[in-house]
Amino acid sequence: MEAPRAAGVDHDPETIDAALAARARAVRLLTCDVDGVLTDGRIHVDDDGRESKAFHALDGVGLKRLMAEGIAVAWITGSSSASVAHRARLIGVTRLYRGTDDKLPSWEALRAELGLDPAACAHIGDDLPDIPLMRACGLAVTVPHAPGEVKRHAHYVTRLPGGSGAVRELAELILSARARVG
Amino acid sequence: MEAPRAAGVDHDPETIDAALAARARAVRLLTCDVDGVLTDGRIHVDDDGRESKAFHALDGVGLKRLMAEGIAVAWITGSSSASVAHRARLIGVTRLYRGTDDKLPSWEALRAELGLDPAACAHIGDDLPDIPLMRACGLAVTVPHAPGEVKRHAHYVTRLPGGSGAVRELAELILSARARVG
Amino acid sequence: MEAPRAAGVDHDPETIDAALAARARAVRLLTCDVDGVLTDGRIHVDDDGRESKAFHALDGVGLKRLMAEGIAVAWITGSSSASVAHRARLIGVTRLYRGTDDKLPSWEALRAELGLDPAACAHIGDDLPDIPLMRACGLAVTVPHAPGEVKRHAHYVTRLPGGSGAVRELAELILSARARVG
Amino acid sequence: MEAPRAAGVDHDPETIDAALAARARAVRLLTCDVDGVLTDGRIHVDDDGRESKAFHALDGVGLKRLMAEGIAVAWITGSSSASVAHRARLIGVTRLYRGTDDKLPSWEALRAELGLDPAACAHIGDDLPDIPLMRACGLAVTVPHAPGEVKRHAHYVTRLPGGSGAVRELAELILSARARVG
Repeated sequence: MEAPRAAGVDHDPETIDAALAARARAVRLLTCDVDGVLTDGRIHVDDDGRESKAFHALDGVGLKRLMAEGIAVAWITGSSSASVAHRARLIGVTRLYRGTDDKLPSWEALRAELGLDPAACAHIGDDLPDIPLMRACGLAVTVPHAPGEVKRHAHYVTRLPGGSGAVRELAELILSARARVG
Repeated sequence: MEAPRAAGVDHDPETIDAALAARARAVRLLTCDVDGVLTDGRIHVDDDGRESKAFHALDGVGLKRLMAEGIAVAWITGSSSASVAHRARLIGVTRLYRGTDDKLPSWEALRAELGLDPAACAHIGDDLPDIPLMRACGLAVTVPHAPGEVKRHAHYVTRLPGGSGAVRELAELILSARARVG
Repeated sequence: MEAPRAAGVDHDPETIDAALAARARAVRLLTCDVDGVLTDGRIHVDDDGRESKAFHALDGVGLKRLMAEGIAVAWITGSSSASVAHRARLIGVTRLYRGTDDKLPSWEALRAELGLDPAACAHIGDDLPDIPLMRACGLAVTVPHAPGEVKRHAHYVTRLPGGSGAVRELAELILSARARVG
Repeated sequence: MEAPRAAGVDHDPETIDAALAARARAVRLLTCDVDGVLTDGRIHVDDDGRESKAFHALDGVGLKRLMAEGIAVAWITGSSSASVAHRARLIGVTRLYRGTDDKLPSWEALRAELGLDPAACAHIGDDLPDIPLMRACGLAVTVPHAPGEVKRHAHYVTRLPGGSGAVRELAELILSARARVG
């Protein structure tokens, strides 16, 4: 077998920073922004005004792995596009908030409902409306294309771009951190 | 928090060239070409002849930030595709000119209506029909893939490609230049 | 004529590793995962919930060349999307299994029907559900973006990404290996 | 004005190889393959079996410039997709041949109809069905992703990829070569 290059989605539990691993290990709820995180940020618009977005198969598998481990997954997006609801349903995410520019109240309500501390929450986002959540939660993550204003609030910047496995990379980070203990 | 790589959309007001900053600070109207600037230039065509174009979420946020600062935003495109009208409406741009190969008259009319000098106008475009506007306005901007014939008339070439945040980068340049004074 | 750069899809029969060539030469059935292999992994979803996937023309030609040489081609995918069936029909693949998360039983049934040993079978896949097939067949192939967990089971990692000619590259590898003997 | 990087679509008439310039200067008919040349080779297929392809605005402008100079433009493609016909009509190409795997007879008929020598014909293609035309015409061009088998028959390989301005680059090459004389 040939020696493979380390893949972008992989995390060696031995080499994750200890503080980052502690944050990742505590996660019981992952909230995700959609445009630029679960997609590459492109919003396709056709002549009938119909939008489409490109989600990645790698991310779908990663989110299902997290939920199989009992970690809740919610998407919180400013977009009102129905395409997001279709994809969320197919993956079976715990909760979807659409058309939500002010993301903090939705997150607070969900967190209370699930009885979780902020330290048990992770958020991944790529733009200004994500900053309040990133500041509030235990593990704040962003993607390589995010403005510096957003990166300043991140504990971790994924190596893979949004829409090309960034969320899978985060899922593997969380799973690796948990494996390290168990 | 990890030290983030400088993001493509960011502009440090300290490091912007002074002449460029002066041009950016004066902007009260931004006109944008569509194909290749607000998109990567790809025109998706389906079997029914329906076109679709891919706009970027980063650009939408940038244009809204400009308009919130009182800067008018107009799109002037040779394309007649209805997809452009749908996206322009969602973002709420000040004015849209479609199917306009000769862009100068539309720009002159809008400029007169808004009572603005050419020095208060910026244009971002990527191909030959944009050159007359680029020559006429105070701040002429293009994208990395533009032909040299077009780049020759630009005061600034964005680092981010068209359709991947070039317009957001320009918006941040204008906002940074204004912040530098205020 | 200018000296061309070696193209990604090409394999010089003289430089293929002998063990790899032997595995490739034995192939009579190629099974392909779809998302991430025949596509780049992106699943476009529109506001009506309709999915679309982007297949590559290079791969279509490659699969037809294999079938013209009498090599059976089957697609085995967890996806239930009708888009896959449309593309499979256009190319005329031997068999299509959709909505199949547990891929091994389908493969075993097809292999038995065609009367082929595992050594006469190749599989190309990019994620966890592909591992059982990769372990069972004579030639296991994956793509550059696959997680390390998957790459560990591959005899060959294509140089071209999924959806941009990875399957054509594998087809040319098989055809080159056969040419080496005949 | 900042010194722009030389753009991909530009050709300095002083630096084009003399033999290549002579071939380009003679061109009165340009035939183009579609998938992989006017597109990046991706064939988007939706759940209703509808195909879509992504053409580039840069190429549209380039083809119109050629036709404005009296150079005929024809597309010859193995694809039967109606999307190609829609795009061809919008650009106003001289002739479109769809569903044509054996491209030589169509080309011979068109060449005879226009009364042109093979030396007055250029073809740009990216795969095996393009080789007969590339061997027959005066200027044979391909794109970076083409298999070596195809590149072997090219007088010129574009720097820009198919679907991202390769055809515009070829158009500018032809226009530059003509400007050199006139």
